[in-house]
Amino acid sequence: MIFLKNDYSLGCHPIVLQALVDTNMELHDGYCEDEYCRKAADRIRKLVKCPEADVHFLPGGTLMNLSALAAFLLRPHWSVISADSGHICVHETGAIEATGHKINHVKTKDGKLRPADIEDVLIFHEDEHYVLPKAIYISDSTETGLVYTKEELQALRACCNEHGLYIYLDGARLPMALNSEKNDVSFEDLPQICDAFYLGGTKCGAMFGEALVIVNDALKEDMRFLIKQRGALLAKGRLMGVQFDALLEGGLYLDLGDQAVRMATQLAKGIAGKGYEFYLPQETNMVFPMFPKEQAEFLATKVMFETYPVVTDTHQCIRLVTSWGTTQEEIKAFLELI
Amino acid sequence: MIFLKNDYSLGCHPIVLQALVDTNMELHDGYCEDEYCRKAADRIRKLVKCPEADVHFLPGGTLMNLSALAAFLLRPHWSVISADSGHICVHETGAIEATGHKINHVKTKDGKLRPADIEDVLIFHEDEHYVLPKAIYISDSTETGLVYTKEELQALRACCNEHGLYIYLDGARLPMALNSEKNDVSFEDLPQICDAFYLGGTKCGAMFGEALVIVNDALKEDMRFLIKQRGALLAKGRLMGVQFDALLEGGLYLDLGDQAVRMATQLAKGIAGKGYEFYLPQETNMVFPMFPKEQAEFLATKVMFETYPVVTDTHQCIRLVTSWGTTQEEIKAFLELI
Amino acid sequence: MIFLKNDYSLGCHPIVLQALVDTNMELHDGYCEDEYCRKAADRIRKLVKCPEADVHFLPGGTLMNLSALAAFLLRPHWSVISADSGHICVHETGAIEATGHKINHVKTKDGKLRPADIEDVLIFHEDEHYVLPKAIYISDSTETGLVYTKEELQALRACCNEHGLYIYLDGARLPMALNSEKNDVSFEDLPQICDAFYLGGTKCGAMFGEALVIVNDALKEDMRFLIKQRGALLAKGRLMGVQFDALLEGGLYLDLGDQAVRMATQLAKGIAGKGYEFYLPQETNMVFPMFPKEQAEFLATKVMFETYPVVTDTHQCIRLVTSWGTTQEEIKAFLELI
Amino acid sequence: MIFLKNDYSLGCHPIVLQALVDTNMELHDGYCEDEYCRKAADRIRKLVKCPEADVHFLPGGTLMNLSALAAFLLRPHWSVISADSGHICVHETGAIEATGHKINHVKTKDGKLRPADIEDVLIFHEDEHYVLPKAIYISDSTETGLVYTKEELQALRACCNEHGLYIYLDGARLPMALNSEKNDVSFEDLPQICDAFYLGGTKCGAMFGEALVIVNDALKEDMRFLIKQRGALLAKGRLMGVQFDALLEGGLYLDLGDQAVRMATQLAKGIAGKGYEFYLPQETNMVFPMFPKEQAEFLATKVMFETYPVVTDTHQCIRLVTSWGTTQEEIKAFLELI
Repeated sequence: MIFLKNDYSLGCHPIVLQALVDTNMELHDGYCEDEYCRKAADRIRKLVKCPEADVHFLPGGTLMNLSALAAFLLRPHWSVISADSGHICVHETGAIEATGHKINHVKTKDGKLRPADIEDVLIFHEDEHYVLPKAIYISDSTETGLVYTKEELQALRACCNEHGLYIYLDGARLPMALNSEKNDVSFEDLPQICDAFYLGGTKCGAMFGEALVIVNDALKEDMRFLIKQRGALLAKGRLMGVQFDALLEGGLYLDLGDQAVRMATQLAKGIAGKGYEFYLPQETNMVFPMFPKEQAEFLATKVMFETYPVVTDTHQCIRLVTSWGTTQEEIKAFLELI
Repeated sequence: MIFLKNDYSLGCHPIVLQALVDTNMELHDGYCEDEYCRKAADRIRKLVKCPEADVHFLPGGTLMNLSALAAFLLRPHWSVISADSGHICVHETGAIEATGHKINHVKTKDGKLRPADIEDVLIFHEDEHYVLPKAIYISDSTETGLVYTKEELQALRACCNEHGLYIYLDGARLPMALNSEKNDVSFEDLPQICDAFYLGGTKCGAMFGEALVIVNDALKEDMRFLIKQRGALLAKGRLMGVQFDALLEGGLYLDLGDQAVRMATQLAKGIAGKGYEFYLPQETNMVFPMFPKEQAEFLATKVMFETYPVVTDTHQCIRLVTSWGTTQEEIKAFLELI
Repeated sequence: MIFLKNDYSLGCHPIVLQALVDTNMELHDGYCEDEYCRKAADRIRKLVKCPEADVHFLPGGTLMNLSALAAFLLRPHWSVISADSGHICVHETGAIEATGHKINHVKTKDGKLRPADIEDVLIFHEDEHYVLPKAIYISDSTETGLVYTKEELQALRACCNEHGLYIYLDGARLPMALNSEKNDVSFEDLPQICDAFYLGGTKCGAMFGEALVIVNDALKEDMRFLIKQRGALLAKGRLMGVQFDALLEGGLYLDLGDQAVRMATQLAKGIAGKGYEFYLPQETNMVFPMFPKEQAEFLATKVMFETYPVVTDTHQCIRLVTSWGTTQEEIKAFLELI
Repeated sequence: MIFLKNDYSLGCHPIVLQALVDTNMELHDGYCEDEYCRKAADRIRKLVKCPEADVHFLPGGTLMNLSALAAFLLRPHWSVISADSGHICVHETGAIEATGHKINHVKTKDGKLRPADIEDVLIFHEDEHYVLPKAIYISDSTETGLVYTKEELQALRACCNEHGLYIYLDGARLPMALNSEKNDVSFEDLPQICDAFYLGGTKCGAMFGEALVIVNDALKEDMRFLIKQRGALLAKGRLMGVQFDALLEGGLYLDLGDQAVRMATQLAKGIAGKGYEFYLPQETNMVFPMFPKEQAEFLATKVMFETYPVVTDTHQCIRLVTSWGTTQEEIKAFLELI
């Protein structure tokens, strides 16, 4: 079977694995208070050119989103605005609501949030009979594999400044976004735009672990209490420090994103070359071709992928995902099938 | 000023007030464990022909909805489906989410939930990465002043049976609904359709207080713990017993709904007679005429009402609400203004 | 039966009732945005000599405590320190924990919190593996009917200033406290000592309703959102404005506390005169005599009261509570029984 | 520096590491739905002789406790009884309360809960004004390094049966407990005694990960929803399957506990042999000697350990912890220092 189902099914990149092996028998303080976490945090601060940022390591994406939003949505009546395809809306089993906060869902075509969407929510929330939107949640790349341009992000920042909203960016697939042909954003732009964001590890070469970067001073205080209270302060936190240290050494992190995106680009071009259409454009490591239904069924016998809930009378959309481990052979093999 | 702004600005009906005065210096056990609460609960059980129902009195509508749903949504991952105009969605400051539960909003034109809406939500919620919808929230009459027919409610019941969902009905304006010309539902139908519902007091002749009726045995256990934990177990609970006892004596409760609906009907007919259009039909005690903008502005200087967020280039929708205290003189006076 | 069971079994004082009757058919804006609430809030600001205070009216004590603490405990890891006999610890079904916050219980003999108790808690809470105590909860009078002296309250204030803790005072029985012979605190001292406190209505002459006074600016923002989210923003909020306006006119509020305390003092003196001992001294409207077990059983056939969980081989402690409605005849009748 | 500070500062046992290395480039389904998780779960079911048990893998101890209790404390008013030194009481930043539930703390001398403690809590919780205790939380070994005998556990079971309480056992250090000289409990006893329990990995040879075993059918339903909602469903769940599979192959898991306990026993004997006293007996991998203060200060310059908050005028208690990685050389070196 060709594997194009997701980007978190392999273990970690061999270089990351070696770092874990090399440091395994070292003794370190627990709970991310070790030298590897400090070193990795320093690397991240340099990478994003924000020496004052706070950096925290958490073991997974949902845990990151729920801990961060529980911390940033300071008051029980504060809510967060998200595209309705946002991970926090649909793939986290109500984790944000379970921390007591409403998500203001916005219907979008492509999974990207825009100033007009925010305005639409705000105008409707007029007094104390409504929740008070206080943050926006965006992902780059989005759940639909698309990226924000710098201009789009700056427009969001301007809108959020005007209305006193925080911007929290889910970067589970940040290195894929930054390697998109559509992308003009760099690491160092992020602290200019976001109050907080995270660099994904799980889908980007690590075994597990994500790195939260808090830019806004107002969001920094006591974050470790919140992380601990949500169960996200790993006893052997150094495991994440070791991994991010290895990923950020010599640009491996970005390279792995590049590999994933290049494979998806070849895939999309190959599919397009054979005359198929797409539900959404390919910008990062996801491809959404529309296949005749019989062909989709045939492919399912040879390839691991997920169907996407877009269907016509004759066609079915499927979601193909590449990762840092996807090879040119797999892409070729897939293209030969169609 | 003519008052057509809402149905909760008067105190209580004189008969209810007299009952409070007459019993004021009596000494009773607290927390709804008194003879008036027992008597009123018995009256309600008889009224809805459900001798096994549990009845609880709570001091307000939001407190009712959040206590009931906190109790009925037994597990943290259970959610409730509601029309996006439902009171719990938009007028309770995220109270349901603050109890930890997601609301699955459904976009509707008229504020009424239908089986197809429920199916749309369910099909999307396929596994443990999503919340598990376990109840539906409906209001009769709705926030838009419309009513459900018996057939519509039975269709919801069938759909909910099929999928294992509870039905919770918000009856803040139940006597208005039951007096609608469109209505063919009676009190005794409700236990056949709902797992739990409440009879509104605040908008229907009481000073304050709502009566929860729990039909489904699975939802009855320990409800008093939940009510107390949410702060909704009033020390002098007997005040609500006294009021509902008075309201339910001799049919006053339904009569007050009738008065409100008759006034709205006269109002709507009068407005229609002058050639104006409506955004929504008048079925209970709410009227939604579209007035030319200048006229809406003029009316605002003579009448207390709320504008409704529906606007065209030339017209503004306004919401007119009648109550048990609205008089024919007020209706006439309004009609003379247009 | 003589009634000495609690102080919330009567309705309201006749003067308060008359005010409700007189204003019943008036039309007012909902949700405490009416002239009576404004007038009552002004009276309270004058009474406590704190013109900048925010005043909010909520329908009950548990609702007050859980709304206030949900608002003041801004961050999920903040906790509140309370004597283990505090109302929030034992009589509110875990309402504070249900808002997500831990209570740091302190064992006390008499229900009063002291600086040493606070220090004991703080020293134990050293880092992010513990909650962060951020407020103390005290009641005056306490659940055990005792009062704080001004010196004691000032010592708490000094301790809380040193450690950055808020003081929230539950004044469900404040007029009883202020009429104690032991008391040297006045209304105007409270804003000097507390960040927020409430004036009880339910046990002090009102039908229902409590008045929250927020002194500290840091705790004022968006309080109405929190009150609404907890279901505590009563639609006909004016009912509470009318009642507090009546209670605070001409000193009725304090007089009713005085009546309750005087009856308890007569009761305690009479019991002491017959040679009985007490588990706790009588300072306000509660008396805790130790009676021989047979006598306690006999009394239970003639008097409504609650036993108190203090027993020796031969004696049982009982709790006798007087109210503004307790008469000299009842006290006499009780004393004749022993 | 000699390291006797805790049992979670090393990475993982070399055999576990090798298993992670060997499987690193395999592609597996996410979220613990892979063959390694299935295999490890089967091993655990066999180990505890409970073929019907459900097994789930979570990445850490606090996450385990908060997810399990959020799931098992089905209703908002249900509480859990714990010794006041229990991990959930003091080392989890109010994580349980943040899920909405009260912990009923019990003061104990040695960190062990007994039936009389449970009865004391229950008798005090009489009606709906109190939370309803529904589970007990125990650890074996305890935070104080002590173990429960089978008789003690059976007495707890009988008490919990009588009162309808669940037993949840925190086994973060279970292999240490089972290797104690005082221990007469085996893996297969646990399902007879507990409704649910967990086998610790983090402190027992794994890099990270704990294995929840749910015995009671009533607690099994939808557990994956709860785990996901709390952020504890790791994308690469197979990492935990691989580790537990390796740990449980050939008895390594128990052997690692044995190594830790043997080292602590040697340590305790050596210290006792030099005439020092202990605050608590050594039963597993923790030793609590009382040293003269100057000696404790001297040791702190040569050994990494934590002081324990028990002090006399002359002596200071310190906590020494051994692990599967502690060597005889380290023990000898320590003993030579004193």
